[in-house]
Amino acid sequence: MHILVIGAAGMVGRKLVAKLARDGGPGGRAIDTLTLVDVVPPAVPEGFSGSAEAVTADLSAPGEAEALVARRPDIVFHLAAVVSGEAEADFDKGYRINLDGTRYLFEAIRQEGLKAPYKPRVVFTSSIAVFGAPFPDRIHDEFFTTPLTSYGTQKAIGELLLSDYSRRGFFDGIGIRLPTICIRPGKPNLAASGFFSGILREPLAGREAVLPVSEDVRHWFASPRAAVGFLVHAAEVDTAALGDRRNISLPGLSATVGEEIAALRRVGGDKAVALIRREPDPTIARIVAGWAQDFDTRRAEALGFRAETSFDAIVRAHVEDELGGVVGG
Amino acid sequence: MHILVIGAAGMVGRKLVAKLARDGGPGGRAIDTLTLVDVVPPAVPEGFSGSAEAVTADLSAPGEAEALVARRPDIVFHLAAVVSGEAEADFDKGYRINLDGTRYLFEAIRQEGLKAPYKPRVVFTSSIAVFGAPFPDRIHDEFFTTPLTSYGTQKAIGELLLSDYSRRGFFDGIGIRLPTICIRPGKPNLAASGFFSGILREPLAGREAVLPVSEDVRHWFASPRAAVGFLVHAAEVDTAALGDRRNISLPGLSATVGEEIAALRRVGGDKAVALIRREPDPTIARIVAGWAQDFDTRRAEALGFRAETSFDAIVRAHVEDELGGVVGG
Repeated sequence: MHILVIGAAGMVGRKLVAKLARDGGPGGRAIDTLTLVDVVPPAVPEGFSGSAEAVTADLSAPGEAEALVARRPDIVFHLAAVVSGEAEADFDKGYRINLDGTRYLFEAIRQEGLKAPYKPRVVFTSSIAVFGAPFPDRIHDEFFTTPLTSYGTQKAIGELLLSDYSRRGFFDGIGIRLPTICIRPGKPNLAASGFFSGILREPLAGREAVLPVSEDVRHWFASPRAAVGFLVHAAEVDTAALGDRRNISLPGLSATVGEEIAALRRVGGDKAVALIRREPDPTIARIVAGWAQDFDTRRAEALGFRAETSFDAIVRAHVEDELGGVVGG
Repeated sequence: MHILVIGAAGMVGRKLVAKLARDGGPGGRAIDTLTLVDVVPPAVPEGFSGSAEAVTADLSAPGEAEALVARRPDIVFHLAAVVSGEAEADFDKGYRINLDGTRYLFEAIRQEGLKAPYKPRVVFTSSIAVFGAPFPDRIHDEFFTTPLTSYGTQKAIGELLLSDYSRRGFFDGIGIRLPTICIRPGKPNLAASGFFSGILREPLAGREAVLPVSEDVRHWFASPRAAVGFLVHAAEVDTAALGDRRNISLPGLSATVGEEIAALRRVGGDKAVALIRREPDPTIARIVAGWAQDFDTRRAEALGFRAETSFDAIVRAHVEDELGGVVGG
């Protein structure tokens, strides 16, 4: 089996590649070849018994998608994207990478199939940013997509293309809308959503973190471990059950900042919680107020997708996967 | 005022141009210049007091959109599209005309605005084909778009682009999903929907027509006259009331084939009805079964969009506008 991972150098991409190298492909099938692609050189996993190649490429550059698809991978994970803030700041770049790049990939697969029969599974990471306020308290799978960012627009267009290319039989696609990933490892960043991870990650490592919103702010979460599980499951799920509705909102945990802090207290104690510094930021509060808080994901659950059901589990996953089981830095 | 009509040679485009030439622009404002564009030469309206120019151009060819937009029209009507059947039969052409052509137009307007402030009203004709079965008996404005044709996919993508370009302030856009136009004038064609018009148009002119489905088939209709009214109203409506949700399903009449025939009987008598020949066609019946039957259009109604409320009115509009008031050929 040959697996292509586009966006392999990103946080979720790296974790996906590590899992594939360790556990094999969907259904435990042996992976002969891993092709890992990103705009910066992706790391090749250590100890992988098959053939792994790292390719530095920009999907939106002419010919790049064709060259990757000419290797006829069985599974294509398309994780590459310019993130929300950058797509909003740089209109041209967002459309080039997120829309043109995705379309070039899909079209390259169609063209490859015109040469000789070819129908890979394509797993596309979409986003809950395809939804825009106002929306119901719980967003169901038949709610309309009215994105309020260029990023969300580009992801919604990707979903439509994925559905049409799948309906026409050019590939076997599934688009998965990931919850906000928490606890995101690594350094604090400037994303408006950064504090959701920061107020857990930093105190768990013995460092201070800033909380810019009130404790009653509610949002939608899954761990990096759950995100990798989603991707692998999306590669093996029976898409016949999706019919022509190829894009689904995945399970997550709807929780408040207060519930995050309560979980932190149970795992890291009062000492960890004391490292959270409250600095209300009206700008961030306003941005976050427009975000989805909860989803009805019975469709994805029926397909076997599973996320954490408590913030304690999300925190434990971080302590195990990122801190070697040790709290407190 | 300068008005650009793209798709000016089509049935609705010709009627729109005739109305603009006769009645002036939105709010009765005088039209100095009409630029009429299509892939075949559009007719210039007779007796128009302003300047009218017919341009033969393909919006999906490089540079064409820029040249049209460089004239800085105040209002852009974008009606041009490859229709459903052709977009399904010719995948490349459908995406080239319906997606690339639309995107080139929107992008040309953005680029023109980067040279000097420019923010035209853009009226984009979308379609109820953005919805795909299964759907509720009445499709409301928050129902998700899951098109089951490439045409519907391309229109749904156009809607998303229109919303994003409007949100970013590049133009002031509104996307209108037209009902099925009935009674479509002209010769019978091979469209699966053709009989909805044919069973009225042909008998009203004293000719036989074929009915391939049963009388209980329900669908969603508006007259060509209503469609032109929608376009003009869309060009003048206050888009502030739309917020960031720039695409709306327009009012129509939900009616069965039986109700069509009853209206024909009232206007044309038993003699006209006797010209309908019943020839059940399982293929057409199956296609039509997947089409929307009714819409909840309270949002468009609150904005002042109005359609016929009876099939008698639809038939009368046809007799007045196409037959000079004379039934029976």
